[in-house]
Amino acid sequence: MADPVAIQDEIAVIEKRIEELQTQLKDAKARLQQSREESLASGPGAHLSPEDKMALIKVNLQEVLNPEIMDEALKKQGHLKVYWGTATTGRPHCGYFVPILKIAQFLAAGCHVKILLADIHGFLDNLKAPIELVKFRAEYYRFTITALLKAVNVPIDKLEFVLGSSYELNSDYTMDLLRLASITSEAAAKKAGAEVVKQTENAPLSGLIYPLMQALDEQYLDVDVQFGGVDQRKIFALAKDVLPKIGYKERAHLMNPMVPGLQGGKMSASDPDSKIDVLDTADAVKRKLKKAFAPPKVVEENGVLSFVEYVLLPAGALIYGSPKFVVQRRDAEPLVYTDIKQMQDDYVNDVLIPQDLKPAVTDALNKLLEPVQREFQASKEWQEIETKAYPPPPAEKKKEKKKKDKGAFHPGAARKVEAKADGHVEGVDKDKVDVGTESGEKAIEGLTLKEGEA
Amino acid sequence: MADPVAIQDEIAVIEKRIEELQTQLKDAKARLQQSREESLASGPGAHLSPEDKMALIKVNLQEVLNPEIMDEALKKQGHLKVYWGTATTGRPHCGYFVPILKIAQFLAAGCHVKILLADIHGFLDNLKAPIELVKFRAEYYRFTITALLKAVNVPIDKLEFVLGSSYELNSDYTMDLLRLASITSEAAAKKAGAEVVKQTENAPLSGLIYPLMQALDEQYLDVDVQFGGVDQRKIFALAKDVLPKIGYKERAHLMNPMVPGLQGGKMSASDPDSKIDVLDTADAVKRKLKKAFAPPKVVEENGVLSFVEYVLLPAGALIYGSPKFVVQRRDAEPLVYTDIKQMQDDYVNDVLIPQDLKPAVTDALNKLLEPVQREFQASKEWQEIETKAYPPPPAEKKKEKKKKDKGAFHPGAARKVEAKADGHVEGVDKDKVDVGTESGEKAIEGLTLKEGEA
Repeated sequence: MADPVAIQDEIAVIEKRIEELQTQLKDAKARLQQSREESLASGPGAHLSPEDKMALIKVNLQEVLNPEIMDEALKKQGHLKVYWGTATTGRPHCGYFVPILKIAQFLAAGCHVKILLADIHGFLDNLKAPIELVKFRAEYYRFTITALLKAVNVPIDKLEFVLGSSYELNSDYTMDLLRLASITSEAAAKKAGAEVVKQTENAPLSGLIYPLMQALDEQYLDVDVQFGGVDQRKIFALAKDVLPKIGYKERAHLMNPMVPGLQGGKMSASDPDSKIDVLDTADAVKRKLKKAFAPPKVVEENGVLSFVEYVLLPAGALIYGSPKFVVQRRDAEPLVYTDIKQMQDDYVNDVLIPQDLKPAVTDALNKLLEPVQREFQASKEWQEIETKAYPPPPAEKKKEKKKKDKGAFHPGAARKVEAKADGHVEGVDKDKVDVGTESGEKAIEGLTLKEGEA
Repeated sequence: MADPVAIQDEIAVIEKRIEELQTQLKDAKARLQQSREESLASGPGAHLSPEDKMALIKVNLQEVLNPEIMDEALKKQGHLKVYWGTATTGRPHCGYFVPILKIAQFLAAGCHVKILLADIHGFLDNLKAPIELVKFRAEYYRFTITALLKAVNVPIDKLEFVLGSSYELNSDYTMDLLRLASITSEAAAKKAGAEVVKQTENAPLSGLIYPLMQALDEQYLDVDVQFGGVDQRKIFALAKDVLPKIGYKERAHLMNPMVPGLQGGKMSASDPDSKIDVLDTADAVKRKLKKAFAPPKVVEENGVLSFVEYVLLPAGALIYGSPKFVVQRRDAEPLVYTDIKQMQDDYVNDVLIPQDLKPAVTDALNKLLEPVQREFQASKEWQEIETKAYPPPPAEKKKEKKKKDKGAFHPGAARKVEAKADGHVEGVDKDKVDVGTESGEKAIEGLTLKEGEA
């Protein structure tokens, strides 16, 4: 029989060594951070004045909380550290261009942008899937987001991807999460997630933990600002309130408006044409946009016009140096726009008609997607990740028995899948976005762009 | 400027080394466990038949869930692995003897008993206190519980103390906690904690996480059985339901009845005599027991009689080999009892009167406490820990401003402190059991034995 005392000594030695290495690791990470910050002193945005930087950062935003925090950080560091999080679940579609354009502007303004690939959430929402699959998805997101940013011609050397699981399971993070849970009421956590986490009668507890983690991420990602859709407002308010209570500083918050989806209010989740994948062919884009909801003279909830406002015009500014959107017409001179106001006026007055607008948007979008697709075709690695992240469904296999096992404690089943206009994918329905081998395709179908909350 | 790539390489090397060491650690821990299990084949309880072991394990319990799990484990291993958890907050008082006597019986029946010193909960409930203080309290609990067990003459070589923070912040535990949170509804978590976690209108989120951690502890402590008061029933039901859903096996559950406090229903938390500390002097015990609530001829909610039933009789059995409780009388022969039934009958018929019962209980309790106090006096280490764990309050200092900082997200304040009859200390009121230097004494006062739920 082995000697327990000897084993205990062995354990003590190993534990001590791990502790030492963890101190070294912390030190190395701090040095890396320092080194990165130093390299950011030059680079994109360096030629801009603080005022110009702030103006570019604020373009198209609906709301800015605590701009004084940004002003101060900008003065001190010369640049801002911004974080945006996205759960790595379904395939990114063209709705992702909306937050991506803001991120492109942040980068152009010299910000150090950290994109949180929230794999923990992806895993949490997909309990039946192995963690490995979600990691592939995070990789797929990284490839896609990088390509989308390159497509709008923005330098990405100040872009950093951080995998949620790389720090969200560490003991210091967990301890802080528990501390937050002890000073945050159930009601406050519920309220904070009300517009982000799907509200059902039998909601899972994880939905209440979610906002606390998102708040804590601001501290652990070491940023000045968190960016998200205006639907995140209550989570941002929670973060502002609770971080100082556990000894961390309050951050600024930037919010995009809720932008209607390209197809407007007329699509359904079961319609395969209801979203445009960023890897769709030019023909597919054309076909899907033909179906898009863009009634004549109506500007409100018009997803096609909104796409021009929040994606194509700012993309033009980044790619060509100034915003410009050209609409060819059959029997008249082309319409050339440099701002959305004139476009909306023309649309209301039926000068700009849907029949002319849609082909123009189709062309512009295909121009944006072309380099993305080219990069995908050229990258064996990305292609392999795609297959691993979204495996094709095998032959039909019913497994009706599984349902019975859920029992009394299983949270409600009726959860809709939504990709918010800021790119967050929320309220994921396990059945629809199951990442298991059987429902990879379902997961894709289930992903729709959130509409009409602007 | 340091080279980021070189630092990244350095980080990768350190991370790889940590990973290797963690694998080694896991292996060493498994070997230690194995070695311990082997050593348990002999030792106390080895002479008992499985039937005798089960009978001793079940003495005085109100409820046993899934005895077949115990039967099977006993057959397979020759002994049972049992866990009991206690939050390390206020000073242990004589009410702790109730679960301790069961633990003593488990040990006598050859069980491998793991006592979870739940410091995380202690910390969670006392956010303002430094974690170091709670660690001292865990140490203090370890000294006290060990001494209480020795006082009833039970061998403690199969007793293991586990500190909650030694594994509850590990990434695999955290991941499982999040997985549990994703398959457990808010309502189910709330229901599970209803009798353990104090229910207030503005309860903190940590109260919903609590039952999930208690369930998960069964897996991470690697036990066959969890023991607790019957107030834990709903948490046990949750554990039975959810562990199998994340791939872990269901455990058996043993439940003590809720035993009325020694002072019955007549005490208040502000009364310093409302509980008997395990380190109280013989005189203090006498004085406090004189005040105890024991109306003539009433057996229900009679804390003094209950103490005989659940502590003194079983203690007699462990110390002297058979249960025996002697009541000296002024003008008559002593009454000698070997079971509670005869005692209760005599009490109802006024043969056994409170004036005779109380001195008998005082003597028996002081006899139990005497070796505990002796050990405390002899142990410099224990004395030092006591001072560190429960520092005397400094000179009065009001800090009224603090209250204002709590803000909208702070959970409700009105939480009562209760030590359940099974020894769990629950629903801890932050103000009362603050472990900060200013309120050490308050913490002690706030701790009362739960009454009247048997």
